[in-house]
Order: sequence, then structure tokens, then C-alpha cells
Amino acid sequence: MTEARTQRRVRGGGGAARRAERTAVRIETAPVIARNIPDFEILNAEALEIIEANAEIILEEIGVNFLDNPQALKVWREAGADVQGERVHIPHGLARKLCATAPAAFTQHARNPERNVEIGGRNLVLAPVYGPPFVRDRAGGRRYATMADFSNFVRLGYMSKWLHHSGGTVCEPTDVAVNKRHLDMMLAHMTLSDKPYMGSVTEPDRAADSVAMSRLLFGTEFVDEHTVITSLININSPLTFDSTMMGALEVYARAGQATIISPFIVGGAMAPVSVAGTLSQVLAEVLAGVAYSQLIRPGAPVIFGAFVTSIDMNSGAPTFGTPEAAKITYGAGQLARRLNLPYRSGGSFCASKLPDAQAAYESANSLNVALLAGVNFMLHACGWLEGGLVSSFEKFVMDADQLGILHHLAQGIDMSENGQAMDAIREVGPGGHFLGCAHTQANFKDAFWRSDLLDYKPFETWDEEGARDTQALAELRVAKLLGDYQQPALDIAVKEALQDYVARKKDSVPDAFV
Amino acid sequence: MTEARTQRRVRGGGGAARRAERTAVRIETAPVIARNIPDFEILNAEALEIIEANAEIILEEIGVNFLDNPQALKVWREAGADVQGERVHIPHGLARKLCATAPAAFTQHARNPERNVEIGGRNLVLAPVYGPPFVRDRAGGRRYATMADFSNFVRLGYMSKWLHHSGGTVCEPTDVAVNKRHLDMMLAHMTLSDKPYMGSVTEPDRAADSVAMSRLLFGTEFVDEHTVITSLININSPLTFDSTMMGALEVYARAGQATIISPFIVGGAMAPVSVAGTLSQVLAEVLAGVAYSQLIRPGAPVIFGAFVTSIDMNSGAPTFGTPEAAKITYGAGQLARRLNLPYRSGGSFCASKLPDAQAAYESANSLNVALLAGVNFMLHACGWLEGGLVSSFEKFVMDADQLGILHHLAQGIDMSENGQAMDAIREVGPGGHFLGCAHTQANFKDAFWRSDLLDYKPFETWDEEGARDTQALAELRVAKLLGDYQQPALDIAVKEALQDYVARKKDSVPDAFV
Repeated sequence: MTEARTQRRVRGGGGAARRAERTAVRIETAPVIARNIPDFEILNAEALEIIEANAEIILEEIGVNFLDNPQALKVWREAGADVQGERVHIPHGLARKLCATAPAAFTQHARNPERNVEIGGRNLVLAPVYGPPFVRDRAGGRRYATMADFSNFVRLGYMSKWLHHSGGTVCEPTDVAVNKRHLDMMLAHMTLSDKPYMGSVTEPDRAADSVAMSRLLFGTEFVDEHTVITSLININSPLTFDSTMMGALEVYARAGQATIISPFIVGGAMAPVSVAGTLSQVLAEVLAGVAYSQLIRPGAPVIFGAFVTSIDMNSGAPTFGTPEAAKITYGAGQLARRLNLPYRSGGSFCASKLPDAQAAYESANSLNVALLAGVNFMLHACGWLEGGLVSSFEKFVMDADQLGILHHLAQGIDMSENGQAMDAIREVGPGGHFLGCAHTQANFKDAFWRSDLLDYKPFETWDEEGARDTQALAELRVAKLLGDYQQPALDIAVKEALQDYVARKKDSVPDAFV
Repeated sequence: MTEARTQRRVRGGGGAARRAERTAVRIETAPVIARNIPDFEILNAEALEIIEANAEIILEEIGVNFLDNPQALKVWREAGADVQGERVHIPHGLARKLCATAPAAFTQHARNPERNVEIGGRNLVLAPVYGPPFVRDRAGGRRYATMADFSNFVRLGYMSKWLHHSGGTVCEPTDVAVNKRHLDMMLAHMTLSDKPYMGSVTEPDRAADSVAMSRLLFGTEFVDEHTVITSLININSPLTFDSTMMGALEVYARAGQATIISPFIVGGAMAPVSVAGTLSQVLAEVLAGVAYSQLIRPGAPVIFGAFVTSIDMNSGAPTFGTPEAAKITYGAGQLARRLNLPYRSGGSFCASKLPDAQAAYESANSLNVALLAGVNFMLHACGWLEGGLVSSFEKFVMDADQLGILHHLAQGIDMSENGQAMDAIREVGPGGHFLGCAHTQANFKDAFWRSDLLDYKPFETWDEEGARDTQALAELRVAKLLGDYQQPALDIAVKEALQDYVARKKDSVPDAFV
């Protein structure tokens, strides 16, 4: 994998040039994480077989609902399912068999080919928060999100080196009409970043707009032959597939574009309070959804999704970073691998209202689990706050910094001669120190992950500088990244075509805010 | 394992009694964590063999220093080592062979037998922060620790249900003479808590005082036959064993008391900058230390320790929660298991000056790794701040709350009929919800871990209540736990004997502050 780097270098001689180089803006994106460490397998083979058998029982005996979608019922009937009203009973083994045509891994192309990502296998692709109607920053507090906020989150994602993907609805731009905001969001991802992006799913027409705009950006032929969009298709758990989401799925699958088929589960409400029960239901739902995608177009790229939180049984509030969510994330990863499908789960999940210690405990718990669970695509990898109601500017850069830890941990342990460092131990000997030895001199620059945000200063220095907490440091980093931001170049004709498409579509219908 | 509960119940009839019971102070300690999940194995067999071979080369070729300790050199010579000056060269295989007499697991007894802990096997025992000269709380800021602070941390540990162990130097009581403070610290652990504790290691005499006071508490015969103290013996990495620490080790080993033999490594300073090199050095150091303990008394209980942080190569400051520390913690766990020794590592490590998001990210990273690394004894499990310079009251209760997650995650996934919850999925069906179903009603109380600290309230409620962050919530919890604290009962004669011992020893020598 190549490391993509874009640098603005200032020409000039001598000291001025060197100073300029030191202060030049470097917009660097790390390669996709290619795990060199094993997965954590919480379930043994017997447990996995029980869960898989239970999922088949759910599909055949209980069945799943495909609502307001006669065409889907017809497709299922023709495939051999027993359809009763809107209830689809899928015979034992049929869904799994249909899933077999889905690819184990696929490449999502970016307009900058250096930002292409391969989703599946041992890889982990990181994408930012998705969906919040509110934003929060330290200066302005909590407020409804606007298109200006949306653009700034896209810019921050572009500037975040550990983030591979520009994401989708990084926040809901509530100042734009509901039936038009997808156009502005797509345009922002396509023009303010050159990382891969997600498409709209809130109506099948909006999915079609996402494909049409992608054809303008990449060329029609390229889009017909390559995956350039990955979109989030939520299942209405338990066991329900609504026509809006399925309509969007159909558009993307027919166009050869990727979807994440993702049960959306608050444990205890949309699934049983037990982990094993939830896993059986998740598997049944994903089997049905992926099978349906393959009925639409065999070979369409799909991702096994699992969005799972616990519930606080006292208040009904969703909770994050919990041990139950961890167990489900680990278990679902095993189920996805046995289906030979890419796996989406994890994220910087938290319930906290502020980017404080609670938010960080909850998020770190989730991020650590996701790495070892074998997640291939992590949505919400940074910026999530308050149970997903809020996109936080400060938390975005705080989480994005932590993602560097996942990159480094995934590299595993270097067992080369240099990694074994026996010469260093010989050189230093008992009672010495390693700071100046030859091995340290040769390796120190790349030996340790280093935060671009956190405070490592001596107490006295930190105190003199204002005793800032993480949120205060993050506020400065947000300002710096947005200040350093430079829009990636884009062919002017392409840009105008996109702008024209958006303007035309916006003019064609009146605003709607529901 | 039994769940130890002490309750103050108010006698009385009818409603008054029920109200009293609901508000009664419950001092509950969870049983030791008995893992029902696998360990995460980051190294394959080949890598483990390379590291073990390198450790043998280090011991034989480079050797280790036993400083100012002629008796130790004599013991080593008699055991077959090649001693050159103070350098001990240990022939290939000798140290590992000597380690074989150390027990794979042992019980540390508490004065309340319900608090006994078995250290080793699949267990995880949690103990609080150890060593900081400063304390911090929200009201008073950062200041030198006093004996009053020390006592309050012991009380908090006693009141923390996920904490199994009272620990040792929960902070350094700097208002007591250096040569006498160990007496006050031991007395505090013995009288303010009934959980197991650690002994003094700062001089061999102080270790002897710890054993003598334990004999007063448990009875001489009991202490001769049982382990009632676990103490922390740091190795001066690289490869150096000083006479203070070895003197304390000798006292404890001879008395059949447990020690943690623990390299103290800031990576890049006390060990190579590479993970594999550090692991070889750690293993060599532990092999030498444990072997020495078994030369003192075969069968003396010992723990394979690994305290490892990275270094910020820009400033030289230690860093925590890093991917390099994670890799070493995972790898050292595998090495400990292959030696059949209990393993000590992990903790609520952080570099942050405040109990903020940085502290929580760093601590959560460390805690999650420690659980999956197979740690059997976790020192610093709560309260650690600022690289170990500060014991934080608020962070103590914040971390202690998170330890509940480790307890629940370690239980693994319940695959019973009830856990599979097929009846619930049948009952609810597609489109329903699980909140009211029979399975949820029967299981919701124990289904999910619930924080005793974190905020799950709706935004509006939280906002009206003052928009408190985690530190503010923790301040309230510290006050509540200290307010609810009740000293566990202790035989008055035993208490007087301990007080008398402390008074007599204090009177016997003048104060020393160095």
C-alpha cells in the first residue's frame, strides 16, 4: 500500500526554504490499516454453530417483514421463500447460499486514486461520525447543525491523517430543505475532499442523485465498472426491512455500488437483553438483507453491519462502551468472517454530553474492541457525542488522534533482527540507558506512536500555559486544521457540472422540511 | 466464589423498615474476576521462542548485576552461575529451571476471609494506584499527599465494589517521616479496610515491620502458613537488582509472603525502543528475579511483573495508553503463562494532569489491554494520574467504576437456553419491541452493566442540573462514598497491639526525612 502525501512546498534557497518547509502544510493520509495481529475470538465453534442454527430458525420459522414493497416480495417468492402477506419465511440455508455471490472484499475508489480503500480481508477503513442533527463546539455550545458545519467537518476529515474516508452525513445540515440537503452534502464531499464518500439513503431518488453525481465526478463508464460509493442501509430491527431503505439498497446494488446492511439495535428494545439472542437476530437480519442485495444484483458489494448499544434499564437511554456491546461486536465479527463478508461495526461511541472523561472512556472502550473484533469498515470512528445526537468538533480531532493508536497496534510486533535489538541490549548492558545507543538513534523517529494533540509537558510548563484540559487543546487543533485547510484541486469542468446538477435539481421542486 | 456483602440494616417494622433497607449502606465487594473469555495472543509460537532464546542469551552472555549484596552473589555462585564481580552470568536454562518451584497460583488471605483473593490461573485481582507523592482533587487542586489523604484513599478502596485489594502506597504520606510512614500506612490498611494489602519495600527493616504487624493481625502461626502480604519489588532496568529491593524480597520470600518481581521500564530509556527487544529484556529480568526468590525459599509465591511505558522522544516524558505499551503487555502475558507464573501488568495509566478526556482515553486503552492480556494482578487499577506523580480522588472513583466493565466482559457470552433467548425473539416477532416481553422482564436487572457514576440522563435534565462533566460527578461520588464509609469491625485487642507496635517503633528512632 502506498502512503499518499500532498505537500505544499515553498520554493526558495537556503534557510528561508528550510523554514518554509518546516512550516509547510502537509496533508497526509495514512494507508488503510492492514492488520498484522490476530482477531479476538470470544465464541468457540460450538457457540458459533448454535447462533448460526438459531438464525436459520428465525428466518424460516419467524420470518422477516419487507414492508410496502410488492416487488421485493415477488423476488423473494421466486427465489424460493414462503411469503405470507408481507412476511418472508426463508427456508433453511437459502439466505446463506444467496450471500455466497457477495464479494469477500472490494475496492472503493476515490477521485484521488491514492485514497482508494480496499474494504474486507484484514483491512480496517476508518470513516467519521454519521447522522447527528446537532453540533457542539467549545465556543458555541450545542446547536442545530448547518451546512457550514457540515463543510467544516468534511474539511477536518480531509485534514485528519488517520481517517481514510470522508463519510456521509457528518451532521444533518438542518438549514437546507430535507428534500435537497443530500445534494449539498454530496457536493461538499466531492469538492472539499478527495477521500471516498457515502451516498444518500433517505429516499431512493436521493440514492439515484448520489449515483448520478458520482457519474459526473468519475465518468459514467468508470462508475458502471467500479465501486465509488458505500452507503448505510439500516435494518429496522427486529426483522423489518422498510421500503425507503430497501429502495435505496436497490438503487445502489443495481449500480454496482456498495452498501452496509446494518441492524440498528438498542439491546433490550430492538433485540433481546441477552448477547447470544442479539447475535442470532443480528445474523438473521444481515443474512436476509445481504441475500436480498444479491437477488437484486449478484456480486453487488455489501458489508455485514452491526450497530449495537445497550440500554440503561432505569431510564431507557442508550449506553455506549459497555461490556455487552463489546461482546456483540466481537461475536458478530466472527459471524461475518464465517460468511466471508466485510464487517462494519465499532466507532467513537459515547453517551456523554461533553467531550469529557466519560466520552473518552466510552469511546476508547469501543475503539479498542473494534480493532480486535476484526472490523473492516468503522463508521463513526471520530466525532460522535451524546448518543449520536451531536457531532462534536473537539471530539472529532480527539478521536481522530486516537485512531493513530489503532494503526500502530495493528502492525503487530516486529520480529526482525532490528526489532529484536540484541545489539542494543549488549551495547547498553546492566545499569546503562538506551537513550543514546546506536539502535535508539537509528529507530527512535518511528519507534513510538505520538499524539498530535495530547499533553506530555512537565507539570510546571503545562500549568504556566493555562492548565488546559483536552477539550481546550482540541479547540486549538480544530482551529489550526481548518486554518491550514486547502481545497484539493478538481477539474473546473467537473466542478461546474456538479454545481449545475445540484442547482437544476434544487430548482425542480419546492423546498420540503419534513 | 462467594460474594462478600456487609450491610447495615436498620431494624423496625413495615414501611419504615423497607425504607431503611433501601437507603442502607451496602458495602459490597465483587468476587475476583474469573475469566470466561480467551486471552489475546499477539505473538505466534515462533516469535515466543525467539524471545525466550534471546532472554537466555542475555542472562548467560550479558548477565545481571546484583549490587551491594555479597550474600546474593554467594547464593548465585552456589546455584551454578558464573559470578564476575557483581555481575551474575546465568547459564542457559538455569533461571527457568529455578522458576519451576514457584506456584502457578496462590491465595492471599485477608483478615475478612470473604475478601481472600486467588492470584493466578484465569483470575484477575484489582488493586489501586501505588506510589504518587501528590494528590489532586477538584476542590483543592494538586498538593503534596498527607496521611489524611492516604486514609481517605484506603476508605475509598474499601467502598469500591469492583476493587478486590486495598493496595499499598496509595499515595506517599509526606507529612510523616520517611523512616516511619510505612508503619502508619500498614496500620491504615489493617484497620480502615478488611481487604488484602501490600507491604513496605523501601528498606528490608520496613518489610520486616510489615510481616511483624501482619503477625499481630492474623496470628504468627497463620502468617507462617499462609500468604497475607503481596509486595512490589521493582527491578532497576536494565538488568540491575539493588540491595534495597532484594533485601525486601529476601524478607518476604523467607516469610512465605508474595512479591511481584517487576521490571520498571520507560521504553527507549531503560529498554530498547523496540517491542521485541523490550520483551526479551523483561523476560530475562523476571527470570533472574524469580529464580533468585526461589533460591531464597523454594515455593515462595511470586508474580511475573511488567511495568512498561513508552517515551515521548521529543520531550523524554513517559507516555501511557500507547500501542507500544499494549503490544508489550500482550506479549509479556504470553511469556508469563509459558512460565506458569501469575502475571502483573496494566493499570489506569495516563500522562494527563487532569482527570479529563486524555486521562480517560489513556486509562481505558490500558485497562482494556490488561483484561485481554491475561493479567492476574493489576496494580494501579484506579486513581493514577499525571504519569504516577498524582493520586486523584475523582479519577479513583471514575476508574473504579470502569472496572465493572472488566468484570462483566470477562464473564463471556451466556450460551444457555435463557441466553439464546429464542422464546423472546418468537414472542416479539418482526416490528415489535422487547421492552415488555417475558424474557426481558425476567432478565433485565442483571442483563447489562450499569455505571454508578456516568451520566445517562436526557440532555435537558442534565443541562438543568448544571451540565456537569465527569469530574464534577466524580467529586460528588467521592464525597458520598467517604460520607457513607463505616470502619469494618476489628478485635479491640488486635487493634491496640497494632497501635502499640507502631507507637513503640516510632519512639525508638528519630524522624528522618531522607
